[in-house]
Amino acid sequence: MKDIKVLILGGGDSTRYWPLGDKLFMTYLGRPLLYYRLNQLYKNGFKNIYLIAGSHNLDKYKLFKNKFPEFSFNIIIQKDKRGMAGAVLSAEDSIKNSPLLIIKPSDLFEDSLFSHFLKSAKTEDIILTGFTSQNYFPGGYLTVKDGYLQHIVEKPDKDNLPSSMTRLVFDYFKDSSLFLNYLKKARSTKDDLYEVALENMAKDKHKLYVLNYSGFWGQLQYPWNALNISSYYLSKIKNYKGQNVQIAKGAVLKGNVYLEDGVKILENSKIIGPTYIGKNTLIGNNVIIRDSMIGDNCIIGFTTEITRSLIGNNNWFHTNYIGDSIMSDNIALGAGAVIANFRLDESEIYSSVGHQKLNTNKIKLGAAIGENTRIGVNSSIMPGIKIGKNCVIGSGLVISRDINDYNSCFLKPDLQIQENKNASKTKSRENLKTALKF
Amino acid sequence: MKDIKVLILGGGDSTRYWPLGDKLFMTYLGRPLLYYRLNQLYKNGFKNIYLIAGSHNLDKYKLFKNKFPEFSFNIIIQKDKRGMAGAVLSAEDSIKNSPLLIIKPSDLFEDSLFSHFLKSAKTEDIILTGFTSQNYFPGGYLTVKDGYLQHIVEKPDKDNLPSSMTRLVFDYFKDSSLFLNYLKKARSTKDDLYEVALENMAKDKHKLYVLNYSGFWGQLQYPWNALNISSYYLSKIKNYKGQNVQIAKGAVLKGNVYLEDGVKILENSKIIGPTYIGKNTLIGNNVIIRDSMIGDNCIIGFTTEITRSLIGNNNWFHTNYIGDSIMSDNIALGAGAVIANFRLDESEIYSSVGHQKLNTNKIKLGAAIGENTRIGVNSSIMPGIKIGKNCVIGSGLVISRDINDYNSCFLKPDLQIQENKNASKTKSRENLKTALKF
Amino acid sequence: MKDIKVLILGGGDSTRYWPLGDKLFMTYLGRPLLYYRLNQLYKNGFKNIYLIAGSHNLDKYKLFKNKFPEFSFNIIIQKDKRGMAGAVLSAEDSIKNSPLLIIKPSDLFEDSLFSHFLKSAKTEDIILTGFTSQNYFPGGYLTVKDGYLQHIVEKPDKDNLPSSMTRLVFDYFKDSSLFLNYLKKARSTKDDLYEVALENMAKDKHKLYVLNYSGFWGQLQYPWNALNISSYYLSKIKNYKGQNVQIAKGAVLKGNVYLEDGVKILENSKIIGPTYIGKNTLIGNNVIIRDSMIGDNCIIGFTTEITRSLIGNNNWFHTNYIGDSIMSDNIALGAGAVIANFRLDESEIYSSVGHQKLNTNKIKLGAAIGENTRIGVNSSIMPGIKIGKNCVIGSGLVISRDINDYNSCFLKPDLQIQENKNASKTKSRENLKTALKF
Repeated sequence: MKDIKVLILGGGDSTRYWPLGDKLFMTYLGRPLLYYRLNQLYKNGFKNIYLIAGSHNLDKYKLFKNKFPEFSFNIIIQKDKRGMAGAVLSAEDSIKNSPLLIIKPSDLFEDSLFSHFLKSAKTEDIILTGFTSQNYFPGGYLTVKDGYLQHIVEKPDKDNLPSSMTRLVFDYFKDSSLFLNYLKKARSTKDDLYEVALENMAKDKHKLYVLNYSGFWGQLQYPWNALNISSYYLSKIKNYKGQNVQIAKGAVLKGNVYLEDGVKILENSKIIGPTYIGKNTLIGNNVIIRDSMIGDNCIIGFTTEITRSLIGNNNWFHTNYIGDSIMSDNIALGAGAVIANFRLDESEIYSSVGHQKLNTNKIKLGAAIGENTRIGVNSSIMPGIKIGKNCVIGSGLVISRDINDYNSCFLKPDLQIQENKNASKTKSRENLKTALKF
Repeated sequence: MKDIKVLILGGGDSTRYWPLGDKLFMTYLGRPLLYYRLNQLYKNGFKNIYLIAGSHNLDKYKLFKNKFPEFSFNIIIQKDKRGMAGAVLSAEDSIKNSPLLIIKPSDLFEDSLFSHFLKSAKTEDIILTGFTSQNYFPGGYLTVKDGYLQHIVEKPDKDNLPSSMTRLVFDYFKDSSLFLNYLKKARSTKDDLYEVALENMAKDKHKLYVLNYSGFWGQLQYPWNALNISSYYLSKIKNYKGQNVQIAKGAVLKGNVYLEDGVKILENSKIIGPTYIGKNTLIGNNVIIRDSMIGDNCIIGFTTEITRSLIGNNNWFHTNYIGDSIMSDNIALGAGAVIANFRLDESEIYSSVGHQKLNTNKIKLGAAIGENTRIGVNSSIMPGIKIGKNCVIGSGLVISRDINDYNSCFLKPDLQIQENKNASKTKSRENLKTALKF
Repeated sequence: MKDIKVLILGGGDSTRYWPLGDKLFMTYLGRPLLYYRLNQLYKNGFKNIYLIAGSHNLDKYKLFKNKFPEFSFNIIIQKDKRGMAGAVLSAEDSIKNSPLLIIKPSDLFEDSLFSHFLKSAKTEDIILTGFTSQNYFPGGYLTVKDGYLQHIVEKPDKDNLPSSMTRLVFDYFKDSSLFLNYLKKARSTKDDLYEVALENMAKDKHKLYVLNYSGFWGQLQYPWNALNISSYYLSKIKNYKGQNVQIAKGAVLKGNVYLEDGVKILENSKIIGPTYIGKNTLIGNNVIIRDSMIGDNCIIGFTTEITRSLIGNNNWFHTNYIGDSIMSDNIALGAGAVIANFRLDESEIYSSVGHQKLNTNKIKLGAAIGENTRIGVNSSIMPGIKIGKNCVIGSGLVISRDINDYNSCFLKPDLQIQENKNASKTKSRENLKTALKF
């Protein structure tokens, strides 16, 4: 195990994850996702780690290394741009002639996958990993016979799936050079050289054992996937109160609630677990938060409701409803702004990614909002909408289309202003007051 | 008394009651209005009951009969379509040669009317009923001399009323056949054959005694009339808690509050009586409800306020204000939607019925909303508006006209989207936070 | 001291203070501003008071005299319309041949100015008053040498200030007739005869001592200045509960809170001091008020938040956010209306006065609203906006320009109404309910 080199394919650019920035550095329970991936490898005994970086995220990896010196790993720049195959070939010098485990950094799985893998690695030289699912998944599909790979099909047609076994990138090669050779010889007009190499290996009668994994698999491609990851980590928390936590009289905590240092919860607010609140975040009066992760230094102001959401750092809310949403850092919402999470026709929510309109398979989904964005008072954001970073959304708007980074959005109201001839009709309000009951 | 046949004119089609469905089956305190009318007849000893049905509501009456077997009554289909006269004539075979009491099912009155009637019936062979009122009423008016009818005028001109005595349909004929004969001979070009028959009887020197009723009279023609009926029944309730009622700490109940089985009231909510909450309805956090009837299985979500309203079953609210409104079943309102109940010019609220614009004589009146309708987040419904069943009202709208059944309503916002050049000006929020006081 | 005549230049018309009415009669802690000015003079021994009135406010001064008989002062109508000079000359007969102190009624200063003045008056025959400030001030500037006036410049160019000493109108002349003579001889094409007279006195080698005042100076020109005055008076209050004050269980008071007679605070509301609540005002459920002055007979309804605002009498709010705003009397806001107080670009807030766009130097500023105005449900008023008296602002609007007195403002929504074909797709909500957690 100690001699297995782990190659993390971290050169992707999170395009499909827009507007949320780099998915590996989004924080869960106060730590970036990458922390958890490395920690899991360490905990399971894999410390010989090579991380592929792109030029766009190299600096972030370096910063991470400085911040978390407990992990030692080598950063390799992906020079060969040809997708996963290019990533592996970019690392050739470091990983050749060695046992090799290849993973994608944004695929979450449980420790049980390691223990099953280690058992299989005693007898198998090549191991791929499959996951049986009835839901369509826009990735690879495996057909298997007697435990070994027959065919691998990348992104098959939704109506013509070769099997119900999708592919999780957790690939082991006892002899990395064998795979490297296949990679070099692979040819394709599509972005599937890696899969072509595997297919060729199977065709050449190499035995590619397919490990059937059945635990939690958190795939992180689209912004809304982050909610699944958040739920997964929330399911692990316990009740906890850090230093200098203040909870006012009349505030109610229920279920597992994890409060970091300096959290302040004001009167008549209710936190329903599992919920995590980051450092120095203030929960104002009459707030309700359920099943959510809130970052550091947020102000969750008067009468805000947050449900099943993942909220970054330094966000500022104020009499808002936020349902099933994902927010980056440094976002502010004006009073009365609503992030709607449920269509009026109660059907599944679609979201545009590139030129595609994807079914999120969710009937409850709010918005994904990039960093530094401001939303005006009484504005309404429709379910499944994505708003870029550094945007300004005016007041009183209904946003039902995605808004790109660095855009502002206002409505020129066609107001009809005229003389108010009825002013003198205004009546005494004393009768009205008498009718009030409290 | 036992030999008096009661004829209930239940063939009307509730057209003026749109969008609320059939007024006899709207529930108050968990039971349909028809239940109360039959129960009152039974309680006062009248069990020989004939109910006129139309083809449009025949099935509903049959269902009712099955559901409430404690009442036995005969259903007669109205074959003669000529209004009230046609209704009575359709029942001729069942009611001829008998003492006969004719009532309308949607006119509510108190038991005292029965006791006064029974006293008068000892000496009088024909009894009509009048109600003295200073307010205009779009129905019949009576002129009376020495206690007996002189003339009956159907829907007189508002500015030329023959008297201040309006007519409540509670008509007794010791010999029904006499009245049936007059009905058959009556001729008119308008829908007033019944009244013409009465006028002709008076002309022929029959003595039609006019009983002067002065108790509560609940007329149910227009949707907003249901609020009066609701108030009447609410005035009768006592404090009550059914089985499995849960009331969280910090919730406040004041006045007469009737909670059916399974009601759950969460923290910091306040219920001000007289208020009735139906079975298994959930009152969320920080909700306020006053002077209202709420049906079964509703979710009254976070920070909703409901005032003087009649709310059906299976409704779902969420941070809404609902004032002086009537809602059918299975309605949902998005967060921030407001049902306004008070004009900005504080004048009386008008409502369109057919081609007429009627003065509701109310300065506080919200909306009437039909079943299965959805209203989007931050939408505003103006006072006196009616929204049909199965409608979808989009988000951020202002609805100031009635919306027909099965309509959707959206606003195409003319958004001005442009590059946000000010993004870099965003300042640190640390100073702002320091200024916060809690 | 007893022989000093005090001349209050009260003939101004508060034009720049629109839409808030007459600034001298706006109430703070239950009393009009003029009360405080007179009270301060009395307390410091100045009881020989002459008040210049214009024809537009003469009646108000007379009413004030009747209401506060504890102050005796003479009202003089300003016949000479030439600004401050005309005001003084209009009073010539009353003030000639006497020690004279001239002040403006809307300039607030502390008692320390009187004590410093009295000390200086022992040796100096003419005293002006300066205030050193780094901020630009649209008034007079003084250059001083050895304690005496060299030059006075009225409204210098912002980029070419003659000094950092601005002029506070607190002018003493031991011999009023000397100054009256200079006033009569002064000539100018601008509205600065008063300052020209002072400049000429200095030129003629009269010694005009300049007292350097450094305490609180509340200048009251524009509506937003009233917030500074309000803060000043709030800083003086102590905890106090008047007669018949009711505070419900679960309500929280923090800091110095002054509650006048008859105030009622309902459940789960929070008042954060310094805050003043006027007579018989009702604070509804779940309200939060901080750092504010609220007038008499207001209804602050369910879930309203008021921050750093000055609110007049008889106002009616209801689920509103009101930040850094100034409101006259008899104003009503519909549910969900928001008075925004912070620009989305977080920059300083400008406000139009006449043809000028002024920088208020505030990054948090709401609206100024005149008396008798109504604002509809879910409307949004942008930062720094002014709305006149007797206006009607419709529902669901975004108001980003000033609205003149007696104007109504509505939006004709371009609704798209069509048949709702999806109605039948409405699903059972039972699954949704099961997923709810509370």
